[in-house]
Amino acid sequence: MSTPEIRIAVDCMGGDFGLPVTVPAAHQFARQHPDTRFLLAGHAADIESALAKLGGPDRDWYEILPATEVVTMADSVEVALRRKKDSSMRVAVQAVKDGRADACISAGNTGAWMAISRYLLKTLDGIDRPAIATSIPNQKGGATTMLDLGANVDCSAEHLLQFAIMGSALASRVDRHKQPTIGLLNIGEEVIKGNEVVKQAAELLRNSGLNFYGNVEGDDICKGTVDVIVCDGFVGNVVLKSIEGVAKMVATMMRAEFKRDALSLTAGLLATPVLNRLRDRVDNRRYNGAALLGLRGIVIKSHGSADAYAYGYALARAREAVQNGLLDGTTSAIDRLRQSLLAAAAQSAKLTNQTSDPAP
Amino acid sequence: MSTPEIRIAVDCMGGDFGLPVTVPAAHQFARQHPDTRFLLAGHAADIESALAKLGGPDRDWYEILPATEVVTMADSVEVALRRKKDSSMRVAVQAVKDGRADACISAGNTGAWMAISRYLLKTLDGIDRPAIATSIPNQKGGATTMLDLGANVDCSAEHLLQFAIMGSALASRVDRHKQPTIGLLNIGEEVIKGNEVVKQAAELLRNSGLNFYGNVEGDDICKGTVDVIVCDGFVGNVVLKSIEGVAKMVATMMRAEFKRDALSLTAGLLATPVLNRLRDRVDNRRYNGAALLGLRGIVIKSHGSADAYAYGYALARAREAVQNGLLDGTTSAIDRLRQSLLAAAAQSAKLTNQTSDPAP
Repeated sequence: MSTPEIRIAVDCMGGDFGLPVTVPAAHQFARQHPDTRFLLAGHAADIESALAKLGGPDRDWYEILPATEVVTMADSVEVALRRKKDSSMRVAVQAVKDGRADACISAGNTGAWMAISRYLLKTLDGIDRPAIATSIPNQKGGATTMLDLGANVDCSAEHLLQFAIMGSALASRVDRHKQPTIGLLNIGEEVIKGNEVVKQAAELLRNSGLNFYGNVEGDDICKGTVDVIVCDGFVGNVVLKSIEGVAKMVATMMRAEFKRDALSLTAGLLATPVLNRLRDRVDNRRYNGAALLGLRGIVIKSHGSADAYAYGYALARAREAVQNGLLDGTTSAIDRLRQSLLAAAAQSAKLTNQTSDPAP
Repeated sequence: MSTPEIRIAVDCMGGDFGLPVTVPAAHQFARQHPDTRFLLAGHAADIESALAKLGGPDRDWYEILPATEVVTMADSVEVALRRKKDSSMRVAVQAVKDGRADACISAGNTGAWMAISRYLLKTLDGIDRPAIATSIPNQKGGATTMLDLGANVDCSAEHLLQFAIMGSALASRVDRHKQPTIGLLNIGEEVIKGNEVVKQAAELLRNSGLNFYGNVEGDDICKGTVDVIVCDGFVGNVVLKSIEGVAKMVATMMRAEFKRDALSLTAGLLATPVLNRLRDRVDNRRYNGAALLGLRGIVIKSHGSADAYAYGYALARAREAVQNGLLDGTTSAIDRLRQSLLAAAAQSAKLTNQTSDPAP
């Protein structure tokens, strides 16, 4: 094989469904991508039997990483970190830390997944806090990358700047946007323009060397005004779930209206291809695979309710992040920022020296 | 007439369209509601000619409040308050202050409208800051009242409690929910449960005597889990606009898909009644009319882009707020809270005395 192998460690036990989704999804992915190998973390016997059900695939594609424990949705971060030291989550992240895997993925408890990843892998130099980023389909036919989505509830302006760097690297390396445009989520001109942290963050972003577009508002997410939108984790989490809520409401109401009477049913049947195209355009399964950014390793989070189809998209995010050098992209973005800050500081020191030079 | 007259002061000049929307909407409303009279604030001659265009309606329905200035969307709060002292906005609010009108309404610059209302009317006893509330259609066929939507960017836990009181009064008096359920907007259990202010607010709400449901998440807005959702103005503004953005995106995509080819066009024609019903269910024109709560007077804000149909809904909100005693409802809710806090304090003092009583 000419391309180097990409090795993804999968927490097979996580998510609403666990093995019946994770193993078939990995299998399907391995068949489609001969450059990808999987390290399957979880109960060894159960993984073996899940593989056997798939008709005995090429066992060279898989290595099993035995783990005796499973982090549940109800487990606190404390329990996940301190008590379940042999969890499938931890074993998957450890494989990345040990250099045995290039990326890891879980559909389980987000808080635990973040805490374990952060504890084992640590953050990159220049990043104080990791962040969660995902893609939201937009009107332009693409997707808007948004972060943070809940890892950081209270953020400083510097944190928002770091999110912008990480989001920019993700958008350029994984979503192939050249010099991605960055928007800072803010409120309208109507009342008071944003809080103090957002105002300071805008100032930092203007001097960051990033392709900063300026402030954006809530409706810019779906408009696709910019490639990356930055906000604190409280706002990001609430907005993402609000958007999912509207989409669900519209889908539910549409189904109800098309079932109301015989005429509507007929119209619905005829409209099926149109409605399916519409559904495909906004199908959030195609945007599955949030990235936990800012860590010394590639860590992906699948939606807990993902089916094998959706899980495949999250695996593809992991593969693309490895293949396109997301980590290198992030560290060089941090370096560029550092250099431009140093240059600005040197320039400012020079100016200060010139002004403070006593007249001869 | 058996019912007392309701007098609404209208800033006729505000909004994207001004007179061509506000005057016909008021006229239509007066025809439908014989108990309602209008005080029309703005350029007197222009209002007269707008009325004349309507075929000379019953002039007793209207009184003109002449105003020589107009607050524009570009005007800062400073300009609106200090320089344009004879604006149609200000004249409309002044009519409420003077007791000549029971409510006032504008479709103009929200920040200016809030600032002028607050400056002239002042806040109710027990309310530190006014808030903006609106209704968002939900899956249950009703609407969820949400506040604050941008008047207060940085909020304390006490502010959130006050928003809950005001929102509860609005939902019970205007939307006729008995003991409205109150939800506090927060993020999922996944990571960290909300920031410190939200945690403290939950504590206050639990002891408030209000019908507090607990924390809700972004998707609960459209699910209709509770009657009223409370959040700070930054989050509320971003969420409201995000929701509007998704709705617009889905509508745009749907139109595009139904126009793609001849077959889709035919399906679209057949599906028209179904799609119209769907549109009506989520038509935000029917939910026009945000309330500026916590002021010593009823102040309504129409969407700037409202047409006469949508403006009529905002006028209806104003009328219902007057008719159902929104202000009384708010002040008695504040009083009830004060009494329950006093009772709790007395109880706690009694307990402290009992424990600290020296043994005889």
